[in-house]
Amino acid sequence: MDLLNDNTSKEISRRDMLMNSGKVAAAAAMASLGLLQGTQKSDAYENTAATMYKYVKLDPRDVGQTTYENYFKRWCTSSVIAGFAENLKKKGVAGWDNFPIDAYRWAHGGFAGWGALCGTMPGAGVVIGLVTKDTDVAEAMTNDLAFYYSYTDLPSFTPAKVMKAQIKHMTISGTPVCHISVGKWMRAEGAAFLSDQRAERCARLAANVAMETTVMLNTYVDGTYKPQHKPLYNVIANGITSQNNCSDCHGQNPPSPRETYESLEK
Amino acid sequence: MDLLNDNTSKEISRRDMLMNSGKVAAAAAMASLGLLQGTQKSDAYENTAATMYKYVKLDPRDVGQTTYENYFKRWCTSSVIAGFAENLKKKGVAGWDNFPIDAYRWAHGGFAGWGALCGTMPGAGVVIGLVTKDTDVAEAMTNDLAFYYSYTDLPSFTPAKVMKAQIKHMTISGTPVCHISVGKWMRAEGAAFLSDQRAERCARLAANVAMETTVMLNTYVDGTYKPQHKPLYNVIANGITSQNNCSDCHGQNPPSPRETYESLEK
Repeated sequence: MDLLNDNTSKEISRRDMLMNSGKVAAAAAMASLGLLQGTQKSDAYENTAATMYKYVKLDPRDVGQTTYENYFKRWCTSSVIAGFAENLKKKGVAGWDNFPIDAYRWAHGGFAGWGALCGTMPGAGVVIGLVTKDTDVAEAMTNDLAFYYSYTDLPSFTPAKVMKAQIKHMTISGTPVCHISVGKWMRAEGAAFLSDQRAERCARLAANVAMETTVMLNTYVDGTYKPQHKPLYNVIANGITSQNNCSDCHGQNPPSPRETYESLEK
Repeated sequence: MDLLNDNTSKEISRRDMLMNSGKVAAAAAMASLGLLQGTQKSDAYENTAATMYKYVKLDPRDVGQTTYENYFKRWCTSSVIAGFAENLKKKGVAGWDNFPIDAYRWAHGGFAGWGALCGTMPGAGVVIGLVTKDTDVAEAMTNDLAFYYSYTDLPSFTPAKVMKAQIKHMTISGTPVCHISVGKWMRAEGAAFLSDQRAERCARLAANVAMETTVMLNTYVDGTYKPQHKPLYNVIANGITSQNNCSDCHGQNPPSPRETYESLEK
């Protein structure tokens, strides 16, 4: 608080108050949805699919390599699903013998090329959602995966044999949004979207997402999975479904959540 | 072209040339992926799921109402899936008796609340992907759905009985991105994210998406479905996975696709 400026400090006080009371209200609303850690799971659903689609521990490297190889014929979403389906099928695990891997291809490129959510993550989400037993676990894992995706230098996966092109750069996306993620990498690498380099990048990125998901699901099987981040953290922090890369789109003047909290107070 | 300024006109000429040659290259690349209308479907996959999950014509109003009612316990993605699963189950259609509706809940709020892709559309995508026979059809339908979502005043659905709150506004999102779509509506309505009004809006929006999807799938069953828009239109137009709401994030100076096409030309 700036004590040298009465107006500012009053303003900040009022804002802090609104933010804080807003956060309390938000937390209460979240709690009623059963989505904060430690709250009752009144609104979490038992997932009937978990009895149909089993999971056994896999070697992340195997899942990553299979995902990478599938990318060049199936693109991001279905290649991540193939990474799991092919390796689980190989082990004779229930549910994966005739899994409709390509029924999810439309999620590629941020939804049929619209650049929204990177397709690797709904690919992982399909597998996570089908093999975990309740929706709160899937919520926590996909949230953790979005943090991993957004704040890790990617792609770090190195294929057994390079299939398309040598690439030089890794980038931090700051977001799960395809357009921004791929755009930052293209700028760093100096490569076009319809280039072998960009395809190679997305194939390796898909492998990374599949590997991270494998690590999480392996701990889930062991009974040791613990969420790394609070579910709905961004919603609570920003008062709207959101990421934390506000300046990527809003420049230096992102809207304050204040008007949101103010109308929440009414 | 500005003939009063030689530099500008040369610049524009060069740019036009690059854009046009880039577009030819892009179109060739797309054609090789079998994704332009009228090209061979060499890379489209027959979907094994279409033999497991059947679809019969449904009344869009029924699907919309079921989706709306489900929203308040299942959120966007699973409520759209429930709109189809519950009505298809009622008609005894194969594949929907014990469908894992909640295994896809993580896609809500743009991926576990991250505000990326509006969760109504992957909900519709799951159904579209499972019941259509090849991936090119699912690609075209999800693309059409993104156009509908982005350029229609929504939500226009009116429930049989209002479950949460009266709302006043419809907005055009210009994008399938949850954060922008819901943010524009919140600003118009003056409502917070964690309000009954916003929940009501998203429930009605989910109903609209489910209804539009029903209309498309009904024509598919009749054999009369025709894509309204070219698949991967945005990728070709902008040289990257993208939408056409550039100024929403880039303000008045969106990056030119030129550097993309230039590197494509190398």
